[in-house]
Amino acid sequence: VIIQAPMAGSQGSALAIAVCKAGGVGSLPCAMLSLEAMRAEILAIQAATDRPYNVNFFCHALENLRPPMVSFHFGLPSPELVDRIKKMGAQILSTATTVEEARWLEARGVDRIIAQGVEAGGHRGMFLTDDVTTQLGTMALLPRIIDAVRVPVIAAGGIADARGVKAARALGAAGVQVGTAYLSCIEATTSAVHRAALAAPHHTALTNIITGRPGRGIVNRVMRELGPIRADVPSSRAPRSLWRRCAQRRRSWAKVISRRCGPGRTSARTRTCRPPRSPARSRQSN
Amino acid sequence: VIIQAPMAGSQGSALAIAVCKAGGVGSLPCAMLSLEAMRAEILAIQAATDRPYNVNFFCHALENLRPPMVSFHFGLPSPELVDRIKKMGAQILSTATTVEEARWLEARGVDRIIAQGVEAGGHRGMFLTDDVTTQLGTMALLPRIIDAVRVPVIAAGGIADARGVKAARALGAAGVQVGTAYLSCIEATTSAVHRAALAAPHHTALTNIITGRPGRGIVNRVMRELGPIRADVPSSRAPRSLWRRCAQRRRSWAKVISRRCGPGRTSARTRTCRPPRSPARSRQSN
Repeated sequence: VIIQAPMAGSQGSALAIAVCKAGGVGSLPCAMLSLEAMRAEILAIQAATDRPYNVNFFCHALENLRPPMVSFHFGLPSPELVDRIKKMGAQILSTATTVEEARWLEARGVDRIIAQGVEAGGHRGMFLTDDVTTQLGTMALLPRIIDAVRVPVIAAGGIADARGVKAARALGAAGVQVGTAYLSCIEATTSAVHRAALAAPHHTALTNIITGRPGRGIVNRVMRELGPIRADVPSSRAPRSLWRRCAQRRRSWAKVISRRCGPGRTSARTRTCRPPRSPARSRQSN
Repeated sequence: VIIQAPMAGSQGSALAIAVCKAGGVGSLPCAMLSLEAMRAEILAIQAATDRPYNVNFFCHALENLRPPMVSFHFGLPSPELVDRIKKMGAQILSTATTVEEARWLEARGVDRIIAQGVEAGGHRGMFLTDDVTTQLGTMALLPRIIDAVRVPVIAAGGIADARGVKAARALGAAGVQVGTAYLSCIEATTSAVHRAALAAPHHTALTNIITGRPGRGIVNRVMRELGPIRADVPSSRAPRSLWRRCAQRRRSWAKVISRRCGPGRTSARTRTCRPPRSPARSRQSN
């Protein structure tokens, strides 16, 4: 299965629908959506496709829209909420960036674990550690997590085309999550300045100075001048309020923050939205 | 082909010979050897096996021992020396950590390029940049380098067992280089303190405070207390003199420096030295 990585600020239901229609699992990022906007977006997906889709939260609540999959970043919400989501019949996915995080998630009933290698664009999902030196590349992280848990593991980070899908399967992944390759699709809401940066040669780095939490983005002036990783950034509570403000002042922030990017190839098709071809038959997720 | 990564300070000819006999390509690291010691070690390999082997230099000269492969780290020696080695009939390998370095090496006649993902243990082979944020994981780096050059590319970094070999091949690698998995072999000269650290749960990080150049090693007290990466380390010329002194005062240094390690599994066999089984028939390198 190929899951389109949820990318708050760069996409809405249109990309998720296009991915579902192309045979993948489209994701709707809800971090920057009001409850009403989220509801409208999910209804749009449900109206457009019968394929499984995924809704993603940093750590939010969910209404009774019965999505087939719900994914989280930065751990999990309260056990009561996890229970309610499971009782709705949804599969729960969450991100692990270390073996310890994978074990923690499995112990709390997650149905699938997304092993996020350090190549991945966007926020690191790390939640049991603040130490970025613990963050391994996909080639090393994925087999370690697969060996440590029993639930299926989805590979994320550095997977940009069919070769990466095949490699992830060779390492034992049950599926892959792909983000950057989708950023240039016409169905994505990626800003013009972000698209231009993706199309030009670029260099990505982990940084914590944009939102307070480490994430990979295209190196820009603020990262170069302040240094990509600093100890004196605001506490890890900052991101949520930042993202909230961001949802209100989106235009002015777009230039600064919405350049998330993995190191993936930038030759992603901009006309048709299609996930990287899987070398083997792609299996329906359910 | 599976190449055993040269690991100065942790091995001599014994490990290289054992790897050759098991069907891989053994490597002899020469960075810490006097010319006489190097000569004796190469003669020992030649006496013990007819299989191809590799001698590795940071950037040294080579005598007329006609090794089948010569690999370099940190770029290449002078064009005259590269020419002389090629005229001896040896294949030249060198390490690229970025697409730019791979193109640079290909333009200078390297026969194979080792794409060193950031998961790799030991020194980063980086030579066109000092910026560690340019260092990508194997999953992202390998296909980018393969797309950028015509010579065969060997994958290094995070490859610890047959799954990693298979994944590297799926990404297009002509072979793999494996280091950490060999550190625990009885034929390796890995110190007792290093073996104990490898056998216990451990955490690796990139650091430049040990030799002045960035490399991955097991996190120890000096890395924790000084911070793994510092801007105020001695210049990049330091490592060579450090290594030279190290060759003389090896015992006293062992505890501090020779804990190189990738994030690979630590369950490497300590009784028999055997490279990870290749999923496909392993091809003879020549």
